[in-house]
Amino acid sequence: MYAQIEKMAAALAPKLTAWRRHLHTIPETAWNERETSAFLASELKRMGYEVITGNPVAGHDTGLVAELRCGGADQPVFALRFDIDGLPVEEASDPEHLPLSLGFQSRHAGCMHACGHDGHAAIGLGCARLLQKLRHHLSGTVRLIFQPAEEGARGAAPVVEKGWLSDASYFLAGHITGRDYGGSEEPDAVPVCSSLATTKFDAVFHGRSCHGAQPEEGASAISALSAAVLALNAIPRHSQGATFLNVGRITAGEGRNVIAGFGRMEAEVRGASTELNHYMEEQAFRIIRHCAAMYGCTADILPQGHAPSLESSPDFCRELAEICGKGLSSVRFAEKPEVFRASEDAAAMLRTVREAGGKGAFLLFPTHTAAPLHSCRYDFDETILPKAVSIFTAAVFHWCGGSLSQPPL
Amino acid sequence: MYAQIEKMAAALAPKLTAWRRHLHTIPETAWNERETSAFLASELKRMGYEVITGNPVAGHDTGLVAELRCGGADQPVFALRFDIDGLPVEEASDPEHLPLSLGFQSRHAGCMHACGHDGHAAIGLGCARLLQKLRHHLSGTVRLIFQPAEEGARGAAPVVEKGWLSDASYFLAGHITGRDYGGSEEPDAVPVCSSLATTKFDAVFHGRSCHGAQPEEGASAISALSAAVLALNAIPRHSQGATFLNVGRITAGEGRNVIAGFGRMEAEVRGASTELNHYMEEQAFRIIRHCAAMYGCTADILPQGHAPSLESSPDFCRELAEICGKGLSSVRFAEKPEVFRASEDAAAMLRTVREAGGKGAFLLFPTHTAAPLHSCRYDFDETILPKAVSIFTAAVFHWCGGSLSQPPL
Amino acid sequence: MYAQIEKMAAALAPKLTAWRRHLHTIPETAWNERETSAFLASELKRMGYEVITGNPVAGHDTGLVAELRCGGADQPVFALRFDIDGLPVEEASDPEHLPLSLGFQSRHAGCMHACGHDGHAAIGLGCARLLQKLRHHLSGTVRLIFQPAEEGARGAAPVVEKGWLSDASYFLAGHITGRDYGGSEEPDAVPVCSSLATTKFDAVFHGRSCHGAQPEEGASAISALSAAVLALNAIPRHSQGATFLNVGRITAGEGRNVIAGFGRMEAEVRGASTELNHYMEEQAFRIIRHCAAMYGCTADILPQGHAPSLESSPDFCRELAEICGKGLSSVRFAEKPEVFRASEDAAAMLRTVREAGGKGAFLLFPTHTAAPLHSCRYDFDETILPKAVSIFTAAVFHWCGGSLSQPPL
Amino acid sequence: MYAQIEKMAAALAPKLTAWRRHLHTIPETAWNERETSAFLASELKRMGYEVITGNPVAGHDTGLVAELRCGGADQPVFALRFDIDGLPVEEASDPEHLPLSLGFQSRHAGCMHACGHDGHAAIGLGCARLLQKLRHHLSGTVRLIFQPAEEGARGAAPVVEKGWLSDASYFLAGHITGRDYGGSEEPDAVPVCSSLATTKFDAVFHGRSCHGAQPEEGASAISALSAAVLALNAIPRHSQGATFLNVGRITAGEGRNVIAGFGRMEAEVRGASTELNHYMEEQAFRIIRHCAAMYGCTADILPQGHAPSLESSPDFCRELAEICGKGLSSVRFAEKPEVFRASEDAAAMLRTVREAGGKGAFLLFPTHTAAPLHSCRYDFDETILPKAVSIFTAAVFHWCGGSLSQPPL
Repeated sequence: MYAQIEKMAAALAPKLTAWRRHLHTIPETAWNERETSAFLASELKRMGYEVITGNPVAGHDTGLVAELRCGGADQPVFALRFDIDGLPVEEASDPEHLPLSLGFQSRHAGCMHACGHDGHAAIGLGCARLLQKLRHHLSGTVRLIFQPAEEGARGAAPVVEKGWLSDASYFLAGHITGRDYGGSEEPDAVPVCSSLATTKFDAVFHGRSCHGAQPEEGASAISALSAAVLALNAIPRHSQGATFLNVGRITAGEGRNVIAGFGRMEAEVRGASTELNHYMEEQAFRIIRHCAAMYGCTADILPQGHAPSLESSPDFCRELAEICGKGLSSVRFAEKPEVFRASEDAAAMLRTVREAGGKGAFLLFPTHTAAPLHSCRYDFDETILPKAVSIFTAAVFHWCGGSLSQPPL
Repeated sequence: MYAQIEKMAAALAPKLTAWRRHLHTIPETAWNERETSAFLASELKRMGYEVITGNPVAGHDTGLVAELRCGGADQPVFALRFDIDGLPVEEASDPEHLPLSLGFQSRHAGCMHACGHDGHAAIGLGCARLLQKLRHHLSGTVRLIFQPAEEGARGAAPVVEKGWLSDASYFLAGHITGRDYGGSEEPDAVPVCSSLATTKFDAVFHGRSCHGAQPEEGASAISALSAAVLALNAIPRHSQGATFLNVGRITAGEGRNVIAGFGRMEAEVRGASTELNHYMEEQAFRIIRHCAAMYGCTADILPQGHAPSLESSPDFCRELAEICGKGLSSVRFAEKPEVFRASEDAAAMLRTVREAGGKGAFLLFPTHTAAPLHSCRYDFDETILPKAVSIFTAAVFHWCGGSLSQPPL
Repeated sequence: MYAQIEKMAAALAPKLTAWRRHLHTIPETAWNERETSAFLASELKRMGYEVITGNPVAGHDTGLVAELRCGGADQPVFALRFDIDGLPVEEASDPEHLPLSLGFQSRHAGCMHACGHDGHAAIGLGCARLLQKLRHHLSGTVRLIFQPAEEGARGAAPVVEKGWLSDASYFLAGHITGRDYGGSEEPDAVPVCSSLATTKFDAVFHGRSCHGAQPEEGASAISALSAAVLALNAIPRHSQGATFLNVGRITAGEGRNVIAGFGRMEAEVRGASTELNHYMEEQAFRIIRHCAAMYGCTADILPQGHAPSLESSPDFCRELAEICGKGLSSVRFAEKPEVFRASEDAAAMLRTVREAGGKGAFLLFPTHTAAPLHSCRYDFDETILPKAVSIFTAAVFHWCGGSLSQPPL
Repeated sequence: MYAQIEKMAAALAPKLTAWRRHLHTIPETAWNERETSAFLASELKRMGYEVITGNPVAGHDTGLVAELRCGGADQPVFALRFDIDGLPVEEASDPEHLPLSLGFQSRHAGCMHACGHDGHAAIGLGCARLLQKLRHHLSGTVRLIFQPAEEGARGAAPVVEKGWLSDASYFLAGHITGRDYGGSEEPDAVPVCSSLATTKFDAVFHGRSCHGAQPEEGASAISALSAAVLALNAIPRHSQGATFLNVGRITAGEGRNVIAGFGRMEAEVRGASTELNHYMEEQAFRIIRHCAAMYGCTADILPQGHAPSLESSPDFCRELAEICGKGLSSVRFAEKPEVFRASEDAAAMLRTVREAGGKGAFLLFPTHTAAPLHSCRYDFDETILPKAVSIFTAAVFHWCGGSLSQPPL
């Protein structure tokens, strides 16, 4: 049966490419994925899926959930997650950029799929197609979550809030990545054992404006903000693991000769574990409050996104490695999980599943890429798509009623 | 004759008001005073003036100069300066705001005459009219300079560069102000003995962008800029007089998780004397360079405007006070010069004249105002207009051939 | 009679010099003026004074008060103040230094009268001698206050606390100074209309020590203190007058590889008025508290001295100028009061007297000096001593019963 | 033969304890180990060693080197290093502190062997004794280096400079440590694969002193130093591994009302690798220079110690593990090298040996300790001493002519 899955996925390759390329032409930034959601809903309905749109994510109107109910009492829910948002990046216009030379470049000015989520959504459609075909061999419910706003670690929490992970026994998600493992042994899939936890926030400083020639009448939001930047960067390094902080954008002040009454910074902290991230967050918030007060200002801290550290279930990974090793001849699945030196929104979902007694994993799908993630020249080798579809489908098959010894369709 | 001047000025009051109100409807920001310049040129030509437009100010196409050549060998040049630019301020829309209720509010969205330069330009036209009438009693040349871009202390230097002050023996300029002197003895004109020298500049920081998770690859323009803000504010106070510094606007960075490659600050320094301002400037520039270098960045310092401290000629002021005291019954001229706790672009012109052996003064014209300078509710009592015209005209008459004892026209 | 006073003072010159030189040999730092106090007490007792020692200053055992009770119901108390402390300065040892070449250099290693208080104390003894002789022409009480700890602005407050100024109608104090007025018109005495108010304080930072390799366990007092230094220097300049701040000494930390658990700074703020000084003080204290909290530390602020701005009574100064002008032929008394660009402890005493309805003044006594105040080469021209004695004695005589027209002794 | 070595070491245990306890009574801080050096030299001479004292370490007069020349053409030099300095710590005086209750507490007030170097030196003497006995079974040269000033990472570099490692083929050193490995499997020796590289330095800031009321005349070393503290703490975290920085002591300034002309900071940087430490060093030095320049000051950076990251030779460790495993029945030698989260001066020696083609290792000797290293209650279980002697001696025997199959003595 696994050979069958592999064969079906291979046959689907041209369709996967077509889906991905169409999605690449209509990138939409976080919370604005309306055209994308409509396209995905239409394809899923055509396949016969029950599609939940409208408000699948608490407080937002993009994203969608499709379910395949295969029946069987007390049968498990297996949740798959695919992120669908693009980035506010202007796509490269040089002839060597493949999406341009092949004519599938972004049609939305200033927006681009520069993080591979077009590929992730296409993998989602591919899994939907294969699982639909395998439905009579499955039991339980397969839930395909097409999540908006992964960028900025914002979409996962409201998905969790809506309860889409509360009853899930199994969870899988993944990310196409360009990591070069070298040699012939390069894996196609690598489970992640930990990622950087992160908290994204804006700090808004309120001072008191006045003419620059009467400084004592005012309270400079620029001074408070600048002091905070220095002190944030100086948060003591933690000896128990990596911590990071970045103030990425600042804007403040009304005019050259006016004491600034207003300032805003966009910042993020990260930690090699959820606890280390919490350490950074606590320090950062305390510093911001006191830097504001020091200059007679006040500061509001506005949360903008949060992800815990991602921890795949070790036994789930081992079992998945065994399935792939025995069942999928075209896929190299790395046995040893890796640390992912980035943050990933799916962590909140995986944690929800595991805390309720379920299992799951987050996979990296290494493949050739033209440029780093988030670059305007980013593009990836589409041969990874059917491989990812095989792995996800095989996993669902295994945990929802299938077995290695089952005869082919 | 001085009584005659006073009478002529009084008769001109309705016209002065009309000019001022028309100018108030067409405010234009610094270097964009095209409609204003065209209107002034047309009025001046109608009075018979030789008008120089096109390029009266080095490197710019706004502003204008009108000359009245009254003849006489070796006779003096008397330069009068009137500034004409508005501010990027949205005019108030409440019914109590007089320009609105009387229908002469700004017709240029986002722009307003909130610093009284509409009045200054109207005074200029008034002087032009009266001096044209008095021309047969005058000798030498009267040069009326309608200067653009006083705001930000930018326009005076290129006017000086063009040579308009090089041959001037006398110089006068003034500013309508709302200072409340209280009592019945409130003066209509006060000479300024010193103002704040100022240097306006932008500092542009160039760092090296990279992903926030590899901080060692980048060089944060935000860190450099923030360190500079703190250090600039901490420039040691000078014991010899007032010094000020303001960083009024900052903007830096590309995105939350990107080490900032770029930052810009808009700043200004001021000093109670040209030397004190120079002290601040030197310290500020050194700090900016080293703060950039400290974080592996570089910084460009872009000058945006400069004014020395303004120093009226003491004897010129005394003589002018005497003329006004004896000749102009409706005008109270303060004998004691005052410190002007602001910066004024005319300082560069006055200094040029004095350095070449000439004399001159800068006058404040106190009058009732509805709100502080630069406020969207600013408005002033127009009865000051004919008084200012009288004083300027009387001064020109005195130094260009007239005398107190001269018979009336 | 004034001529008589002048003559007596002139005759006393050798004795004044002898007193001053002896005092110069026994300098003692603030609160340690025991040998000095004993010497002064012994001289005053020999003149027949009632001397209060032991505890004339709240909480301390140095300094002394001598009173001359001249009787008369409802007669005024006239308080004169002379400061007596030396400085922790090692006196110069080069042959050109007059105290060395004449053999009256400091015999106390590391301590020196480098601020002229030896002269002030000698003037006090001189006044005591003359007033004793004049006692039958006087009414009321003359109170001679020999104050310890003027340096650091520490001694005046506890003198006031003891009540020595509560019943005083008149107050006089002065300071020998090296200001060069140039020309033959150089005055011998100049009343002070304002001085810099000041607050001296230490800030002690308490952090949490730990090994430098576990920074997250500690809270660095060095980081908190350093942030405070920068922010203190960056307190916005006040537009209404001069303000100063100095952090003059810092010391913190236990060892190179230990997160600092402790830090101390010695600082002072100053302002051209008591209000401006208060502005600086408020800002400084707030900044220190928040810089400590920002880094998880706490800070104690320990007051070390305080002086308000000194304001002589204008009418008292005018009257004194008249007395000197008419009565003392050898003394040039400046009519126009001056700003003293330093802080002076006597301000607290003068304010107490004035707030209770009394009058008084602080005088500068310009004379030739060998080096700036507080320098190890400081020395002053002793011819100022009898002049100062004349002025003080004449003032007491005038306000305590004497009159210009009184016949000579 | 290894059993013989083990037996000899066990027999030596009382002597090892006696040596260690005597050394514990005479702790001397870095570069002052004169009494210690004399005692060691005397013991070594008594054993028949050739002892080099006087100046075995470039520029210093403490420490010593003893050599055992066993002959044989082209035979290897095996260098063993033992550090001998104590710490400026006042030893605990509570009765539970074993050195006190047993009467071998420090006799040098304010100084203590709180880092186990008394034990290291005793191990050195023990090795000397055993190797002397084994000398006829050895070839080549055994060099016993008793190094001063390990604390602060200062002594190793001048030892290397003197050439004591230039001709060494093998190198061994170790450190008694309290790490708790738990369980019955706790090892007695663990090779170190990496330690924190470190650079210790002082930065001396030179400003320009002046009175606090004329700030513009001065250049505040306190401002420069404080800015540097903040910026040093804010050096961007490196993504490739742990980095640390500590400013542990600061002292600056002359007096409260004086602009500080002088300041000093004691600091250190660390990195998980020599490269990461170099990154920190480069950033730190650049920051210090520019912070000084920013405030018109200069800064001197005075190196105070340096250690690269320590990297034992993997094959040497494996071979040593095999020898211990097979030859020493009483010793558990850990196969897997560990990361040492501290800095160790021997790294410079080991690196010198390895760069010249030699091999070596640094070993941790875990044992029970009463308190953390550098604590005033530190004490260790002396049963580790004969074990360490066995291992060192066995290693020398192995690489200098001996073999596992050699018959016993």
